[in-house]
Amino acid sequence: MDKVLVKDLVEGEAVTSFFLAKQVQVRQRRTGESFLSLVLADRTGEVAAVMWEGVEGVGRDLAEGDILKVQGLVGTYQGERQLTVARLRKATADEVALEDFLPRSPLDPSVLLGRLQAVIDGMQEPFLRRVLRSLFEDEAFLATFTTAPAAKAIHHAVLGGLLEHTASVVGLCELLAGYYPALDRDMLLAAAVLHDVGKIREIAWDRTFDYTDAGRLLGHITLGALLVEERIQSIPDFPDALKERLLHCILSHHGELEWGSPKRPKTLEALVLHYAEDLDGKVNAFLHFAETHPDPQRPGWTQYNRSLDRYLYFGRVERADPAPDA
Amino acid sequence: MDKVLVKDLVEGEAVTSFFLAKQVQVRQRRTGESFLSLVLADRTGEVAAVMWEGVEGVGRDLAEGDILKVQGLVGTYQGERQLTVARLRKATADEVALEDFLPRSPLDPSVLLGRLQAVIDGMQEPFLRRVLRSLFEDEAFLATFTTAPAAKAIHHAVLGGLLEHTASVVGLCELLAGYYPALDRDMLLAAAVLHDVGKIREIAWDRTFDYTDAGRLLGHITLGALLVEERIQSIPDFPDALKERLLHCILSHHGELEWGSPKRPKTLEALVLHYAEDLDGKVNAFLHFAETHPDPQRPGWTQYNRSLDRYLYFGRVERADPAPDA
Amino acid sequence: MDKVLVKDLVEGEAVTSFFLAKQVQVRQRRTGESFLSLVLADRTGEVAAVMWEGVEGVGRDLAEGDILKVQGLVGTYQGERQLTVARLRKATADEVALEDFLPRSPLDPSVLLGRLQAVIDGMQEPFLRRVLRSLFEDEAFLATFTTAPAAKAIHHAVLGGLLEHTASVVGLCELLAGYYPALDRDMLLAAAVLHDVGKIREIAWDRTFDYTDAGRLLGHITLGALLVEERIQSIPDFPDALKERLLHCILSHHGELEWGSPKRPKTLEALVLHYAEDLDGKVNAFLHFAETHPDPQRPGWTQYNRSLDRYLYFGRVERADPAPDA
Amino acid sequence: MDKVLVKDLVEGEAVTSFFLAKQVQVRQRRTGESFLSLVLADRTGEVAAVMWEGVEGVGRDLAEGDILKVQGLVGTYQGERQLTVARLRKATADEVALEDFLPRSPLDPSVLLGRLQAVIDGMQEPFLRRVLRSLFEDEAFLATFTTAPAAKAIHHAVLGGLLEHTASVVGLCELLAGYYPALDRDMLLAAAVLHDVGKIREIAWDRTFDYTDAGRLLGHITLGALLVEERIQSIPDFPDALKERLLHCILSHHGELEWGSPKRPKTLEALVLHYAEDLDGKVNAFLHFAETHPDPQRPGWTQYNRSLDRYLYFGRVERADPAPDA
Amino acid sequence: MDKVLVKDLVEGEAVTSFFLAKQVQVRQRRTGESFLSLVLADRTGEVAAVMWEGVEGVGRDLAEGDILKVQGLVGTYQGERQLTVARLRKATADEVALEDFLPRSPLDPSVLLGRLQAVIDGMQEPFLRRVLRSLFEDEAFLATFTTAPAAKAIHHAVLGGLLEHTASVVGLCELLAGYYPALDRDMLLAAAVLHDVGKIREIAWDRTFDYTDAGRLLGHITLGALLVEERIQSIPDFPDALKERLLHCILSHHGELEWGSPKRPKTLEALVLHYAEDLDGKVNAFLHFAETHPDPQRPGWTQYNRSLDRYLYFGRVERADPAPDA
Amino acid sequence: MDKVLVKDLVEGEAVTSFFLAKQVQVRQRRTGESFLSLVLADRTGEVAAVMWEGVEGVGRDLAEGDILKVQGLVGTYQGERQLTVARLRKATADEVALEDFLPRSPLDPSVLLGRLQAVIDGMQEPFLRRVLRSLFEDEAFLATFTTAPAAKAIHHAVLGGLLEHTASVVGLCELLAGYYPALDRDMLLAAAVLHDVGKIREIAWDRTFDYTDAGRLLGHITLGALLVEERIQSIPDFPDALKERLLHCILSHHGELEWGSPKRPKTLEALVLHYAEDLDGKVNAFLHFAETHPDPQRPGWTQYNRSLDRYLYFGRVERADPAPDA
Repeated sequence: MDKVLVKDLVEGEAVTSFFLAKQVQVRQRRTGESFLSLVLADRTGEVAAVMWEGVEGVGRDLAEGDILKVQGLVGTYQGERQLTVARLRKATADEVALEDFLPRSPLDPSVLLGRLQAVIDGMQEPFLRRVLRSLFEDEAFLATFTTAPAAKAIHHAVLGGLLEHTASVVGLCELLAGYYPALDRDMLLAAAVLHDVGKIREIAWDRTFDYTDAGRLLGHITLGALLVEERIQSIPDFPDALKERLLHCILSHHGELEWGSPKRPKTLEALVLHYAEDLDGKVNAFLHFAETHPDPQRPGWTQYNRSLDRYLYFGRVERADPAPDA
Repeated sequence: MDKVLVKDLVEGEAVTSFFLAKQVQVRQRRTGESFLSLVLADRTGEVAAVMWEGVEGVGRDLAEGDILKVQGLVGTYQGERQLTVARLRKATADEVALEDFLPRSPLDPSVLLGRLQAVIDGMQEPFLRRVLRSLFEDEAFLATFTTAPAAKAIHHAVLGGLLEHTASVVGLCELLAGYYPALDRDMLLAAAVLHDVGKIREIAWDRTFDYTDAGRLLGHITLGALLVEERIQSIPDFPDALKERLLHCILSHHGELEWGSPKRPKTLEALVLHYAEDLDGKVNAFLHFAETHPDPQRPGWTQYNRSLDRYLYFGRVERADPAPDA
Repeated sequence: MDKVLVKDLVEGEAVTSFFLAKQVQVRQRRTGESFLSLVLADRTGEVAAVMWEGVEGVGRDLAEGDILKVQGLVGTYQGERQLTVARLRKATADEVALEDFLPRSPLDPSVLLGRLQAVIDGMQEPFLRRVLRSLFEDEAFLATFTTAPAAKAIHHAVLGGLLEHTASVVGLCELLAGYYPALDRDMLLAAAVLHDVGKIREIAWDRTFDYTDAGRLLGHITLGALLVEERIQSIPDFPDALKERLLHCILSHHGELEWGSPKRPKTLEALVLHYAEDLDGKVNAFLHFAETHPDPQRPGWTQYNRSLDRYLYFGRVERADPAPDA
Repeated sequence: MDKVLVKDLVEGEAVTSFFLAKQVQVRQRRTGESFLSLVLADRTGEVAAVMWEGVEGVGRDLAEGDILKVQGLVGTYQGERQLTVARLRKATADEVALEDFLPRSPLDPSVLLGRLQAVIDGMQEPFLRRVLRSLFEDEAFLATFTTAPAAKAIHHAVLGGLLEHTASVVGLCELLAGYYPALDRDMLLAAAVLHDVGKIREIAWDRTFDYTDAGRLLGHITLGALLVEERIQSIPDFPDALKERLLHCILSHHGELEWGSPKRPKTLEALVLHYAEDLDGKVNAFLHFAETHPDPQRPGWTQYNRSLDRYLYFGRVERADPAPDA
Repeated sequence: MDKVLVKDLVEGEAVTSFFLAKQVQVRQRRTGESFLSLVLADRTGEVAAVMWEGVEGVGRDLAEGDILKVQGLVGTYQGERQLTVARLRKATADEVALEDFLPRSPLDPSVLLGRLQAVIDGMQEPFLRRVLRSLFEDEAFLATFTTAPAAKAIHHAVLGGLLEHTASVVGLCELLAGYYPALDRDMLLAAAVLHDVGKIREIAWDRTFDYTDAGRLLGHITLGALLVEERIQSIPDFPDALKERLLHCILSHHGELEWGSPKRPKTLEALVLHYAEDLDGKVNAFLHFAETHPDPQRPGWTQYNRSLDRYLYFGRVERADPAPDA
Repeated sequence: MDKVLVKDLVEGEAVTSFFLAKQVQVRQRRTGESFLSLVLADRTGEVAAVMWEGVEGVGRDLAEGDILKVQGLVGTYQGERQLTVARLRKATADEVALEDFLPRSPLDPSVLLGRLQAVIDGMQEPFLRRVLRSLFEDEAFLATFTTAPAAKAIHHAVLGGLLEHTASVVGLCELLAGYYPALDRDMLLAAAVLHDVGKIREIAWDRTFDYTDAGRLLGHITLGALLVEERIQSIPDFPDALKERLLHCILSHHGELEWGSPKRPKTLEALVLHYAEDLDGKVNAFLHFAETHPDPQRPGWTQYNRSLDRYLYFGRVERADPAPDA
């Protein structure tokens, strides 16, 4: 059965398809009868849903994160689309494909991966190149690394978000390595490729995005250091000094202790990686927020941004007529 | 008379030349007689000096910042060169050239200025181009801007330091404007050129580097905003919205209130300018410190860096034999 | 048509008058029909309103900040007055006077202005007196300055709030100038008069109170410095040192960098102005909060004050019988 | 024997008088012989002293804080006066008067005390007046209160400093009570009189100024609250609510927890007292620093002020010719 | 009449009993009629209640904290029990016992008190033992101390909470006094017994738990110091040094100024008491939160803990089969 | 040749023995001749030394950390012992034993180790016991662990300091595990044993104590996690959940991000370990400081303690005569 996408639901039409249950609540009407209030989702968005009848049979069994087969009618409530559900049941594992339900980065992973591979191939330092190849030629690692989100929520909570973020930071580091010749290019780029690799063990993305126990207890910085250390142990004669500098970049990439780095940057590469990652994250967060939270009443301005604690201005000044300078 | 440079003073030789008095102290010997303890300087460095005889006639008249004609003999004291002065007098204004006494950036100002001019010429936005041209075609401004230091002390306390710093930040912003297409290139580059322009009124460099009263009371951020506002007022029809965004970049380039910016960045250009300026400053400070403060007992490490509150590691790992990857 | 004031609406009566729409929402009933939920306001307060019929024709056109002609009936909902609207339309510009809709300071502006004028006239320093007169004899400036609010929200969000706040701070500074003879009285009072003048460009008050773009991007401290600098430039021979000290007071009146001042007070007048402004603001905020937020369950105490992060006690201890001291 | 004052010591003259030993060090000459290096002081200042001969007999017995009878000759060392001591011995208690050795406030204590008495007499609230009278009619309290310093070091480390500081804060609070009619005048003034009374138990001033054990362990805020509570207990029927508000002012007068107040101000009187005390202290510290630490190289500016973390500007702009305004 | 406990209310049954009114709201139905919305409570929990009829007669008289005699029927609303009230009136003082309505610590106060008495009896230092006995043999004090809660809300807001908390901290301090022989055991234990004694004047618990005026204005740290000082004054010859050290422990037990201590710990006993109190509080808060706020969706984890700003993990790893070590 | 200890050097005697050079400076006399200024040390203390003759031959070769064979005469300079060196040369490796030159903990390592072994043997959890045994039965690990210092400087900069600190924290955790039954005893004790194990790779102690490169770049928290992870990998079937909780305790034992922990405690064991380590460190630092820095002028008080930012009081109140309680 073809998946009907949330973004394609049209008011007034009937629908039968699979959706992810992001919220599940059994509630009471004034009359005392139970009804089911749901938020259904797939990779294209979310829609509210209610089920008025037959709730007793199904309600208690449902949990957030379940994928459901739903039959119902698309209506409206308070100006928003709302699905009135007639019947539903849990889907079986073989009926659905995970990719239909989680949002995915719009960028082509093979292109991004190709860029990282080219960066790795261009490295002169043999041990750094080797540890990176040991990962990027490992199918299991690649499958995980190219699918992982970069965050539980906020901007990069999309499949492929980690790859997208990594490629963006690596690209910026390439520019910086060109601008500051004192930088050890191979060290900087290796660290950029690996800086967030611990996220593949920090975040789970089987149905929704959430932290793993290891993520909560150890965090992606330590998980990344452990993962890289493990790989390095499999490479004979990997120089200790090289390992320490590489791990130092991973540990210190948040820049300050209070931001979760157990060490602050002490090498030029660690310093630059921290700035590159921070700047790239800030630019992308700015653009994403401007796109998703414009202030409807005030052109050019966003709504209040809590994480930056300010309003943002994204308006462009109309290009003036070239006359004045003539 | 040719200037004898501090760096060329040789132990055991006599010298007669002009030097800047950076410190002047009249002190007493156990016997009760006065002597003069000086630090003499020029653009190449500093040397300690003492004058044992004839102090009464000259000592009380001298002040720090005076340029002196000195006749004496180069000796050693506690392992350092020391000049024993036989005679000295204040120089007259026509005997000396300021440039001999203050250090100068090793980079060619005309090359740096050429780069800024090219950036200005490449702007599409006519009003931004025009306000920049009004400054960069003004000989008085140019003379000041190309000579000004970028700081009272620390790294850029050299003639031409402001130009060097500005060109470095502008160059980095050009790269970033290429990497992030959402940036308004002209706004970012105009702001980068002007971000520290208030320093020409904040710092004085007639004989040594020091803050002006205006610098201490108003600071270069406000002085820069006032200077740019002044120029803009002379350009008819300069759009208010453009002016506000440009001044916002200048005001917010320190990034946070507690670092002296009265506003935090709210536009993408202001955000990126702040990062570019901060990163460029940190990289140059790192390299300068590594060059000037290596730990003599520990190869690859610097002495303790107070402003960063840590030791820095600048050593390179020896490139390994390429074998392991083969 | 005479304006019917919000404070005079009586339950059970019909009303036809003009009101400012502070909130506008089109909502759905269970039955699917739209209704309009409004908050109507004028200078005397706010009242909730609903319009059940005929919404389609008007709802989509309304925006917050519109002034509406409304015909309806005053009722009650959940213990509060509520206007049930039968008909409404937007007012035309010539039907209404702005002053009816925005709250105004209860103090007489001409009295307050008279006090400031007397302070200005009493100044000995000719240049400070002259720059102040150039503003306070300028009708356009006066019209704006006497109408401007002192804040977007909180206490002084009333027409005339800036004048009221300025006069209060100036009055306190007069006392302090008398108490501390070391103070430069003219400098302190000039700075007190001008310290918040940038607010006339920071806040807009055409229909509601909000920050202007210039206010958000530059802030009233910098806007004030620019405004004063502009005036000073029109006065020949205004001494630079005097200008720098005056602007310094404006820049530093928030006291600390993290409170938005790009410089902290370095002169005695700047220091005292900062304290006077802070104290006066705190006293007025305390009194206003005690008046508007008493804890109904606990005599003498206010509700929790978020900005001060504490409960306030405004109760008076009953004067004891004078006996014990006799 | 008349006391010879430190400020009156003349180079080249012999002296025999009593001085307080502020520093005592037994040191060795290159030759191995011991000599005594001293700092001698009285209420007018300090002078360095050395004793070359006969040290063995006296050196080990001396301690800082001893008052010594000294016979010697005034000379110079490194541009400063220095006393070369021929003989010395410890003074006996009956030979000296403490007031000769500790600096004293230049203001007349009876005048200051008169002002406080007038404030107390002017109070309407009988219990507050009574608790203050119980202290200010108690000779033992008065003797201590009028002699106590206001600080161990810094500005008010002079006999009578507490009275001077208290009178200054009370005077300012009188002004403020007049300016803000909402203030409970009696409460504010009673709290102002008592706010630092705990200092009489916090600081010892028998020979030098130092904290007592109680001062270090409990601090003047708690000691003051205990002292006032004690007095209140001796007044029958003192209302609890009055006592709590009075003690609250004492506890909260430092304004914030991190400045040592266990409670932040919650009443208007506590708030105003905190500001008055802070402002008065800052103004006096500014003036004192400007007087004692001018920058000799930069007219109008002080040396760097560590506690405020900035340079201060105390220069006056020359009054301009009144012409421009004519 | 026997009290019917909230925890024993059964859906569908009628009930007539006394309950504490924790919330009282008079609300309107769409139809305009008033109804009463209540939260009723006793020591075993809370239950929502509504009264549809006859509200006019009773509603305006009720206040939060009243104890009511209620007759009604237990039903359900939104999955929770709800009492529909037919009649209610205020209880008279002689109808109810306070203990029925406030939660009480499950631990036996006589056992806890016995432990404290044993600690006091075991003290060698006669004055410390004596001041403690003067309190713990005072029936009025004991009645209050054994009933007082330890906090207004959070964990220990139960009758007897102060005794429970004190006994727990004292027990931990006994262990620590054994582990660190340098500790003055008697001082540590006396301070532990008394550290929070000021809470008997800081919190009121007549019907609900709330701060007293003295609590808000002075706080339990100062109130405790005043209370202990008072007792000490009644003991002849109590050594000052002993008193200062004991009061110091009470004042400094929050550890840092910003946590409300006017002095930070300067003695070993004060330091250890602070840690013991902090650790014991954190452990009990952890356990209480794990018990009351498990995350229903994630075994072993709690919901988000705001005061600690993190999720907590309380799961136990299943004990592995002992084989691997064999 | 028997080692002559620094503590046994007697003024006036000749000495020939080995010493560690902690400081080496070549300085000039007024006359221009070089001399050598040294600080010599062994495990019992330090002594200043000078060498006036024959410096040219040896001075340039010496480095801090060298062990020297010295022949000279013990004299005095400025009241301190000073060694005047006649001849010196570097020692060869076989002439000296490292233990003579570095201070050592006075506690018997075999006793401390025995306690840790008993704790390990008493564990019920087989995997935790096994990973600990794998370390504590590894001779290489034991040799390092029992010799390592616990800090580069401050208190535990002694050989065996890590073992001493670990045993003290483990002992305290045993007590706490008894007091709080909810604690997982085995987890807490395993974490206590391992919490600082990374210090064996963070600090070097071949001749003096200093951080390794790995220590500076990665820190003992990450090094400890890597070391423990390595061991765990060698144990088949070690449960992931157990590993994560154990590593979490190591990572979070500094308690807060800003103190270098990349995660804050989320389990009860991690929380308690953090407190136990912090308290034990503070108590030992207090006692050590009181012993080494008493204020000679003020009995019972220490000198100013910079790391705690206060004076400490270690005096005991004289036990009063038991009479008052009788």
